[in-house]
This record gives sequence, structure tokens and C-alpha cells, in this order.
Amino acid sequence: MKAVVYRGPREVTVENVPDPKIERPTDAIVRITSTNICGSDLHMYEGRTDFEQGRIFGHENLGVVQEVGPAVERIKPGDWVCLPFNVSCGHCMNCERGLTAFCLSANQPGIAGGAFGFADMGPWPGGQAEYLRVPWADFMSLKLPPDAQQKQTDYVMCADIFPTGWHATELAGMRPGDAVVIYGSGPVGLMAAHSAMIKGARSVMVVDCHPDRLKLAESIGAIAIDYSKEDPVQRVMDLTQGMGADVGCECVGYQCHDPAPQRHENPNLTMNNLVSSVKFTGGIGVVGVFIPEDPGAHDELAKKGQIAFDWGKCWFKGQHIATGQCNVKAYNRQLRDLIHAGRAKPSFIVSHELKLDQAPDAYQHFDVRDHGWTKVVLHPGG
Amino acid sequence: MKAVVYRGPREVTVENVPDPKIERPTDAIVRITSTNICGSDLHMYEGRTDFEQGRIFGHENLGVVQEVGPAVERIKPGDWVCLPFNVSCGHCMNCERGLTAFCLSANQPGIAGGAFGFADMGPWPGGQAEYLRVPWADFMSLKLPPDAQQKQTDYVMCADIFPTGWHATELAGMRPGDAVVIYGSGPVGLMAAHSAMIKGARSVMVVDCHPDRLKLAESIGAIAIDYSKEDPVQRVMDLTQGMGADVGCECVGYQCHDPAPQRHENPNLTMNNLVSSVKFTGGIGVVGVFIPEDPGAHDELAKKGQIAFDWGKCWFKGQHIATGQCNVKAYNRQLRDLIHAGRAKPSFIVSHELKLDQAPDAYQHFDVRDHGWTKVVLHPGG
Amino acid sequence: MKAVVYRGPREVTVENVPDPKIERPTDAIVRITSTNICGSDLHMYEGRTDFEQGRIFGHENLGVVQEVGPAVERIKPGDWVCLPFNVSCGHCMNCERGLTAFCLSANQPGIAGGAFGFADMGPWPGGQAEYLRVPWADFMSLKLPPDAQQKQTDYVMCADIFPTGWHATELAGMRPGDAVVIYGSGPVGLMAAHSAMIKGARSVMVVDCHPDRLKLAESIGAIAIDYSKEDPVQRVMDLTQGMGADVGCECVGYQCHDPAPQRHENPNLTMNNLVSSVKFTGGIGVVGVFIPEDPGAHDELAKKGQIAFDWGKCWFKGQHIATGQCNVKAYNRQLRDLIHAGRAKPSFIVSHELKLDQAPDAYQHFDVRDHGWTKVVLHPGG
Amino acid sequence: MKAVVYRGPREVTVENVPDPKIERPTDAIVRITSTNICGSDLHMYEGRTDFEQGRIFGHENLGVVQEVGPAVERIKPGDWVCLPFNVSCGHCMNCERGLTAFCLSANQPGIAGGAFGFADMGPWPGGQAEYLRVPWADFMSLKLPPDAQQKQTDYVMCADIFPTGWHATELAGMRPGDAVVIYGSGPVGLMAAHSAMIKGARSVMVVDCHPDRLKLAESIGAIAIDYSKEDPVQRVMDLTQGMGADVGCECVGYQCHDPAPQRHENPNLTMNNLVSSVKFTGGIGVVGVFIPEDPGAHDELAKKGQIAFDWGKCWFKGQHIATGQCNVKAYNRQLRDLIHAGRAKPSFIVSHELKLDQAPDAYQHFDVRDHGWTKVVLHPGG
Repeated sequence: MKAVVYRGPREVTVENVPDPKIERPTDAIVRITSTNICGSDLHMYEGRTDFEQGRIFGHENLGVVQEVGPAVERIKPGDWVCLPFNVSCGHCMNCERGLTAFCLSANQPGIAGGAFGFADMGPWPGGQAEYLRVPWADFMSLKLPPDAQQKQTDYVMCADIFPTGWHATELAGMRPGDAVVIYGSGPVGLMAAHSAMIKGARSVMVVDCHPDRLKLAESIGAIAIDYSKEDPVQRVMDLTQGMGADVGCECVGYQCHDPAPQRHENPNLTMNNLVSSVKFTGGIGVVGVFIPEDPGAHDELAKKGQIAFDWGKCWFKGQHIATGQCNVKAYNRQLRDLIHAGRAKPSFIVSHELKLDQAPDAYQHFDVRDHGWTKVVLHPGG
Repeated sequence: MKAVVYRGPREVTVENVPDPKIERPTDAIVRITSTNICGSDLHMYEGRTDFEQGRIFGHENLGVVQEVGPAVERIKPGDWVCLPFNVSCGHCMNCERGLTAFCLSANQPGIAGGAFGFADMGPWPGGQAEYLRVPWADFMSLKLPPDAQQKQTDYVMCADIFPTGWHATELAGMRPGDAVVIYGSGPVGLMAAHSAMIKGARSVMVVDCHPDRLKLAESIGAIAIDYSKEDPVQRVMDLTQGMGADVGCECVGYQCHDPAPQRHENPNLTMNNLVSSVKFTGGIGVVGVFIPEDPGAHDELAKKGQIAFDWGKCWFKGQHIATGQCNVKAYNRQLRDLIHAGRAKPSFIVSHELKLDQAPDAYQHFDVRDHGWTKVVLHPGG
Repeated sequence: MKAVVYRGPREVTVENVPDPKIERPTDAIVRITSTNICGSDLHMYEGRTDFEQGRIFGHENLGVVQEVGPAVERIKPGDWVCLPFNVSCGHCMNCERGLTAFCLSANQPGIAGGAFGFADMGPWPGGQAEYLRVPWADFMSLKLPPDAQQKQTDYVMCADIFPTGWHATELAGMRPGDAVVIYGSGPVGLMAAHSAMIKGARSVMVVDCHPDRLKLAESIGAIAIDYSKEDPVQRVMDLTQGMGADVGCECVGYQCHDPAPQRHENPNLTMNNLVSSVKFTGGIGVVGVFIPEDPGAHDELAKKGQIAFDWGKCWFKGQHIATGQCNVKAYNRQLRDLIHAGRAKPSFIVSHELKLDQAPDAYQHFDVRDHGWTKVVLHPGG
Repeated sequence: MKAVVYRGPREVTVENVPDPKIERPTDAIVRITSTNICGSDLHMYEGRTDFEQGRIFGHENLGVVQEVGPAVERIKPGDWVCLPFNVSCGHCMNCERGLTAFCLSANQPGIAGGAFGFADMGPWPGGQAEYLRVPWADFMSLKLPPDAQQKQTDYVMCADIFPTGWHATELAGMRPGDAVVIYGSGPVGLMAAHSAMIKGARSVMVVDCHPDRLKLAESIGAIAIDYSKEDPVQRVMDLTQGMGADVGCECVGYQCHDPAPQRHENPNLTMNNLVSSVKFTGGIGVVGVFIPEDPGAHDELAKKGQIAFDWGKCWFKGQHIATGQCNVKAYNRQLRDLIHAGRAKPSFIVSHELKLDQAPDAYQHFDVRDHGWTKVVLHPGG
């Protein structure tokens, strides 16, 4: 089959690779019809991780069940399914409590959490390919309703970024009526904004510096704050009568940058801005990726995975912070149902629908955040 | 009346000062019979804050109502009451949600949270004195049962450290059956350990380097870890089959020190140890005091109120952290009831019961953590 | 001043009565500009309670502060305020936990909960009058923003029915993405439907038999189910693939009726329908009023305040039920903010805005549920 | 193998039956070493259900893994395991949220929830036998620590009654410091009392009429209330200064009886007593079994699965009620860990340890609640 393969920093190719097979009785093989390129794919694409050459990208996957192992009983060939990016077994201590992003079976001993097509998240090949092997398929698969094919650019967002954006608002402890500030207007930040609107925020403020992305935020009713043009903390204070936002979401991660013209990587920028932007007693949810060590960083702290954190202010304000990858299965059923009922439409961020062959070009554009390249969906079938 | 007054770094005196009076119709005057010296008094005693000379110390207060203002209806002269350290109005946005540590009426505009006898927490005189003016007395006062006098060294702990220790376990999200690690075996850490045992922890591990305090921890069934003798993170891992503690509590604050012989102040030590000691998806509750700026610190980050935080590891482990001063009223009724029923006995930490006149000497001993000076209760009446 | 006074079953008059005065230092006097007639006023109007003749109706009140007592510090003359229907002190055991519908100071000893203008809810006169005395005014008053006057038909809903409808969804444990069934399309049921839509329900099904009210439900996106024309349980099952609704709300109370033509009062009808309509493990929130005894009822069980409840089915399905009057202060700030931000508009149910003098006529129409009399707002000022 | 088989009302035999076999790749076979007789076995024993003759009893099972199917990866032969009484798949909508008592795969379509050896809970044979087939074995099995054999009379309680008693306190919303009333001092009620003590109740009141069971309650620090000798509601009021208990637990079910001498079955007795015993705003957790219909009952309501419920009082007091079978997996890990750590010891209720052959005799004694027959553990191996 054809697959999008990593060949070194900023180099991906579409290659012929062996078809995946049923390896364990609980496996399924899914024919992929939609698979997204994600911002976190760029961490590997840029060569800043130890993602091995030859591995297949792709952790946002949707398609049709092709074949199932003898232990699989809930899905059958022909079913449309969306697959969570987190690979999870369903029976370890964490999975049984719904913490599927921290599965203890899907990675090496002592490390919690697996994912398709990812550095340091277990051996699982990704789904930017014609077929995908899905382990623990009964537990993993989200079955889709009859409009699956027609709305697949919506449903495919249930694999990662829609639940991840939603998770940001949950980690922050957002409640209806809240004023919400979101740092980052990339796909995840936009999904957090979409989620906050659905959940009854009274206002959603989105901070970024890319006009195309901020415009998308405005298109769903959010207030855009361009931090290259104004101090975002001051703006949030002005919009909240000096109280600060009730809750905040971090949707950027360690590759956060100072505003132009410098554009230096500045990994503590969003967290410290959040501490200042959020009210006393408020909550902060962090889904942007931070990493335990980053040897290639310029900054001495960053190399050790540390940030210079405004901890005294955070404590004095009595804030709470929750972090980490999204447990997709915690939300994907309800998000699927909201899409089906027409109450959510996450595809509003899709800028490009392309064939698998166009992946290398798409990676290049997306990596430099080319104007208008907000979200790419690849359709392996064409 | 006589009161314990601040006269500059490491200098307190017992002086005659004017008696407090009813100033607003919602005030009460309480004759103090028990008032503790707290570890956070030492921040002011050591001169590291802008606590003004002439101010009265004391935020852990218990006594008998002497007089009430015309709007007071729930308490009357003769009632035994314990007063939360946080001064709070009961009707602002935060108080009405139970967030009394962040009262918007008890401090200057824009700053949430007031306290008796404290730097930067409003103008309220403390209770290390014969009498105390209690604002918003109906809301503030915890009425005590008939055994108030006899058990006052227990009930006085409801003013601050017992609820604060309890709060640490709540902020951490502790649940029955959890393995709990507590950094700090001072009075607050010991109260966190007492709380965790009451709430059904399966094990409580307490990290400190003072043998007298660790012995107190062991006396209530906790496991003592002397971090001057062994690596506390490794010990926690060994005690939890390599998983880490389910939750952790920070009960030290910014004046945390490296182990002997260096004993340097090292403000990120406990937080980074907690991130390493607590499991993937675990919670950390932080009640040790951290401050937004500390101009007298040696460390450049500390001057700005920052710590070099293992943020990448925290995020990768999907941990959650909650911080801040305790909303005493959230817990003091139930803790009072547990004491009354004989199910809690926080006075186990009391090492000295002294007269008000002995306060200067007590401050000196407590400040250097003299062996055996765990907790001092002053009895102004003698 | 003029006030709407109860003079016996189905008889109200507008009379001159003495102006209210500041009686305690914590009181305020409010000049009422909007005050609603509520469905629960009809329980008293119909003479089925022990509401004394001569008492003033009205527990949904909004107006301008006229005068404050010497202990009042948060509001001042000229402020626009909305008053919760529940009278509450702010400092009893229940109020301090936010359970203001169960205040222990506002009723006789042993009975929790007070209200303006209500039978068995304390001595407090109502606000269908030119002025209202507000006890514990600092705690009670919800301050309104500059658009108070212009949007007063929205904000006045924050006194009772908007929070009460919201409370129904909270008691039921509703979460975003849920399918919600609501029994009752009166003002409270419509507010529950409005709330569920704001909070991100995937679908809202409203059961009633009054076409005008069902049409209002449809106007905000709900699905109307006329139980005089079809079996509501079956319809809910059909709409939820046989699973049942995720949660349900009871917004009718003990005066629930069989469908036409019988129209017998049948107090267990809604609860048993809810048990059947809601899924295994689902939740039911009950804000419709039920009463501990009802001597005038036809049914032997009803006289004792009992219903013949499908308890075996409820248990077998593992459902949870929460009940009781709304703690208005738990929600009124956030609902006010949603109105201010234009994200909620509860005035969509208002059918009539009348002068105080027109109250007797309005009671008559509302009592018989005349077509089109959904909700009446009285404006005492004219 | 030998097994305890139902042969009609009040008739069980120990018979030779075929050994269970691996039927699906996810199955395991467990050699049973401890298996309890449960109060709910008596519903079937007495012939009041449609439990078919020839079926094997036993849903509280512990033993050693004998064999596993090819898809099983978490357990292996030789492992000691305890099995939840609820049979659950781990991948349906309810299991994935932890609601394993309402598994949608383990019963017939439309009915949620399966169990070993039970009427109306799916086709699963019970474990009062030498061997047991465990479906979905990776998800189902609770692995036990090295002291499994030695403490098996404790660990076997994790199959049902310890989690079920714990669940009662969770459903009631019990918090540390609460006064808790428990109706029923059978094994489940005693486990609820044990749980409440572990979780930090300030007092636990247990209502029953069997002196041997009440004595066991007292042995763990609870207050015994013999409702054949005093009015339990009045006693609870006296013990709580007239407020009522904070929360209550129903651990009796539909076969509740009036006090002697009448001893009539009176299915609404405990629920109505709970509504009266529990405070305004309090919670009630119901784990005693109630059934949707009971054709053999004397009472017309009971035949339809209804009770005459004090609903008006419940609503007026603003109580909340949660019901249903226990999701064992929600608690069994933490309870196992508390046992292992020596912080819980549920075996205090065990009155008899018997061989499988002695089961018929044991059923007879337990059914008539013979003095001293509190809990029977059968050891099939001898």
C-alpha cells in the first residue's frame, strides 16, 4: 500500500510499504478514507524528535473496517469508524478509569500512553496510508452513523483535535457562562474555541498572530486578539472589567514564539501570560505539547524541559492547572453525536482536502504556516 | 490590652495597645483564649515582607465572644468561637461560592483575599492579643460545642492549619485508597498527613529532614522519609511499585532548602520532586506559600517570583496542580465535628502552651526550628 | 403603596398597604419595576395552601435600590438589582455552602428555606407591589449592568424561573452532548429547555399538551411532544434509538394532569414517565413543586404527599434523582452575564407586560392556562 | 466438576456438572478457592424469581487462573484473581465510562447489566463450583498481591459486597465528617458501615433488628439502632441535634419487613424512613435490590414494582437519591489496596467457612437469618 513516510528533517515521501495484517485476535484493519496532518506531526517532521526514518505518519484517522480478528465482536467489515489518536488497551489501570491517553499497555514499561505514528508513543504505524492496523479494535473504534461518508471531514476531527480542544476546556474547569481565553488559534485552539461556544461560554477570546486563523476564530463568534499588535493580557483585562478570564486554555506548546519581528522561541510565554490573564481562583487547561527534554533548544532551561514559571503569582492567585494529552474516548461519542445532530461543525477549519500523493507538498506549506493552510485532510482513496 | 507586636526583623515585643472596638454594625469583639504561632508568621518575623512595624501578629485565633455589633444575629456574648485566618465578607462573588480565601472585600481593590495579622492581606490586626475585632462576624465565626474550653488546643487548629492541611489533600484530588506523598512535616504537613489518614489513604509518606517532626508523622501512622539521608523520589517509587504516589501535597513553600550540609534555599525543589514522585495523571495540591516577588532572594528567578519548573515532565505525565490559600470555611465545620466526635485530634502536634508574655522567646525558638518546637499555642488569659 | 393582595381562593386585589421600612441594619428597600406572576403563585391563588388572606404575592422581583440599612455596604440607592425568590441569610450552615434555597434563618426553626410572598416559606411579603423590603440585602442582591432597564424583562427571569430551569438540568446531571427530555412546557420547562440548549445538549425534547407553549419550545430549537396526541415515552425512545434520553427534567409538579379528555390530576404521571423515558444510569432533575401533604387531593396517597412510584424500575435502571427548590444564587450571576453578552434571552416566553392594576385579570387568565398567556410581567411603575 | 445447583424453591444440591471451557478467545477459566453466599442469592433460592432449575449459583468469586484464551494478555495461569459479580465487556458505551453494572453486551438487547449466577442478568453460570468461565477476562479480572491466599476471605469481599457497601456511600454523596445512617445491618449494610468509617464519617448509625448483626456494627465503631425497640427516625434526630443525618444508605431492598411481632413485608418502609432520617439537602444511596415487578407480592403496588413513596417530603427537603447495582470495577482496585495495606478488613463479618458440600445446609440457615449466620464463605477446594 501507499503511505506517508518520514525520511529525515523536513522530508517526507509517499512510498509503497507492506500492507498491515491482523497480528493479534483483537486487531482490525481499517481502510483509511480521511487522515489529517496535525500540528504535532510537525514536531517530528522538523526533526526535533527521535522519530525513526521509515516510520509512517498519521494519528487522525477515519475509514471503513476491512477485516477483524477472531476476538473482535463490536465492529465488522463495512462499518465506518473513527480512531482515537491514542492507542489504548481498555483494561489497564488507567484505561479502566477512562484515562486512555495514559494506557499502560501501549508503550514501553513505565511510560504511560501510546499513539499512532508518533515519536516516543509506542511502535504503532500511522494512518496516512491506505490501510491501518488498529489494536484492541473493540475498545478503540468509534462507530459512525449513516452520514459518516458525507460528513467525514467533520467526523475525522473526532480522532484528535476536536476532543483535544474540548479537553482543554475540561482541564480548565470551564463552566457555562464563563469568559474563556485561549492562547493559540491553530487547529486545536480553534477547536477549543468551538467547544467553549458549544458549552455556553459567555465570551471566548483567542490570542494568536496569524490573521487567517484569527479570522476563523471570529467566524464562530470568538473575539480575536492579535498579540503582535497589542498586549494580550491587557486586552483580556479590559474585556473582563479588570477581573481576568474565568478560565484559560494553552493550545500552543513549547514551540511558542515571541511576536514579530523577533519571533524567538519562548517556551514560558503562553503559560505566564495565562497566569496573568486568568482571574484569582481560575483554571488553566494545557493541551499544547511540552516535552521532558529538548536537547536542541537554545535556552538552557528548555534543554532540560523546564520553564521559568511565574509560580509565585500563580499560587497567590490560587489558580489550578491541568495538563496532558486528551483521553479521546472521554469525549468522542458525545462530539460525534453533536456533529450528527448538526450542533457542531468542526470542519470549518479545513482549508485543503488532498490526495495522499500531495502530502509532501502539504507538509511543507503547513510547516511554515503559509497563509490559508489551516488544516489539511488527506483522502488516501482519492 | 496586651498584644504581640512586630518591631523589625526578628524582633517582636509584647506591648500595651488600645483595645479593639466595634467599628461596623457587623463586627464582634472576641476575648482570645488560644492563639497559635504559625510558620507563615515567620515570613514576617524574618523581615522578608513589608509587614509594618507596630502591627499585631496572629491569624490562628479562638476565644469567647465579648460584644457584638447591632447587625450581628448568629452569635452572642459568651459563645465560644474559632475564627478562620481568612477575613471574608460572605457576599462578594468569591465568598458566595465558598472561596473565602479570595474575598474581594477584605483587601485593596484588585487583590483577592484578606487575613488577620498578615503582610499584604489587608489592614486587619492579628489575634496574638487579649482581644480581637472580628469583621463580618456572623459569616466569620465558627461556633464551638460545649467541650470548647476543654479541647481548645484541638479546636484552635480549625483556624488555619488543620483546614489548610486538609485543603492540600483536596487540591490534590486525594481519594480514599490513595498513596499520598507529603513534602514538609511542619505543622501544615502534619495536618495534611492527619487529614489523609482520616480520609482513608492507604499510605501516607512524609518527606522532611527534622527527626522530631518526622517522628510525629510516624506517630499517626505515616511513613517518614528523611530527604537528608535518602533520595525521596526513589523512596516513593520503591514504596509504590514504581508507579509513584497517586497524589502529592506541597506543604513547604518558597523557603524550601536543599538537604544538609548545604541547606541553600532552593525554591523549585519540592515542586520538581513532586512532579517526579507523583504518578502519571496524578494530582498535586500546593498550600506552602509562594510569593509573586521576593527581592531579597539570592536567585535571579526567585526575585521575580519564578521557579525553574519541570514543566515538560509535568505535562507529559498529565498531572494536575491546584494551589493557594485555604478557604477555611469550606472545611472548618466538618473538622470541628470530627474533633467533637473524637475522630480527629490535631493537637498531637502541640509542643508548647505558653502565656502571651512568652511569645518573643517562642518566636526565636520556632524560627530556628529548634528541636521539639513543633507548634506553640499562646493563651493570652494565662 | 399599592400591592397585589390575596383575599381567598381565586381572589386577588390591588390594595393600598403600608410602605415597607428598614427593620434591621442589613435590610434594603427596593422600588420594584418588574415583578412576574409565577406558576407557583397559582398554588396559593387556588386556595390549596394555607397562605393567609392579606398577604402580598410576588417572588420574582427586580428594581432600583431606594434605601439601605446602616450595615449594608455592597449596594447603594440607585443600583439596579434582581432579587432571588429565596430569602437567605448568607451565614447559616446551608447558605455558606451555597444552598440558599434551604436557609436555616429565613423560616421557622427546623424548616429550611424562605421565600418572598409564599405559603410556608417564612413571613416575607412579596414584591407584586411598589416597594419591597429585602432582608440580608448585601447577600441577596444581584447587581445589574448598565443595560438593566432596557433588558429588564430578561433580567427579571434571573429571580426564579431561569435559574430554576437551569437547576433542573444541573440536578439531572446534564452534560454537553446529551439528549434531554423535559416534562412540562410552562415557563420553568421552557427555561429548562433554553438552559439545555445553551449548555450544548444535542437534542431537547419537551412534553406538554398546550400548543402555544409547545410552539415556544420549538422556537428555540427543541422538539415538541404533545402527550395528548402520542405516547411521550415511546416518542422519546424513537428519537433516541431505543436508548432513552440521557437525562430528564420534571417541570410540572404535583398538579400534573392526565391528557384530555379526562384531565384528572395524576401526581405520579410525570415521575413514572421520566423513569421510563430516561436511559439506564441516567439522571432526573425535579424542580416541579411537590408537597408533603395535600389534604384537598382526591387520591388517598396524594393526601399524604405520597406517589405510587415505579421504584423497582428506577432502581433496576440505576437512575439518580435530585430534587428541590433552586438555589438561585448558585446560577444568577452567570445567567445575568449570559443575558448581558447576548448569549441568553429568556424573555422569549413573555406574553404580557401589564400594570400592577391589571394583576387580578392576569391571575384569572394564567390560572386557566388561557391560550397565549405564557408569562406575565407586571410593571408597578406603569 | 462439582457445583451448587438450583433445583426449585428452597432446594439446592451439590451436583456433578460439565467443566467450563474456553468458548471465546477473550475467556479465562478460574479455579475457585473462595465463593460466598450472598443475600441476593436468597431471592432466587426462595423461588421468587425466574431463575431456571439447573443453573449454578455464585457471584462472589475468587481463585487461581487455570487457562486463558488466545486473546488474553493481562493475566496468565497461576495468577490469583477476584472477579466482579457484574459480567462486563469493557467496550460498550456504559463500560467505557466505568458503568460496568450496566454493560450493554452481557445481557439481552435493551437490558443493561450482567452477572454470574443470577436471574435476569444474562446466561452466565455462577462460581459456587470448582471452576468458573470468566468472559472478557482481561477487563474482568482483578489481580491480587502475594498475600492473596492468606487474606482470601478479605479479598473475596471485593467481588461484590465490599464495593457494594462502598457504592452505597458514594451514591449517597457521603463526605468525610458526615453523620451517616445505614438501614440494614446485613453483610452489605455492614460493608457500608465499614466504608463510611474508612472514609472519615464522624458517626455511623446502623438500623436493624438482628442483635448479632447490630453487635458486628458496634464492633467497628458504629452506633446500633434496633428498630424493633425504638423509632429509628427519632433516634437519628436525637443523635444529630434534630438536623438529621447528612446522608443515608438503603441496604435492605424490597424484602424489608415491619418490626416484630408483625414482620410483614413492607417495601416502602426503609425509603420513607430514610427521607425522614436524612437532613434537608442530604443524599440517599440505594443498593438494596428493588425489582420492576414482583407478581408474588401481597401488596397491589408491590406487584407492579411500585412503592408508596413520601415524595412530597423528599422534594420539600431537597434530597437527592441515587440507585442501582454497584459498578464493582469502580472501586475494587482501591479496596484491594486498602486490604493489602491493612487499612480495611472486611472479613470481620465472616461467620462460617465451609466446604462446597455444606452449601445446602448453609443456604437453609442463612435464609432464615439464623442467629450468628452472618456471612458464609465456601471453599470449593476444601
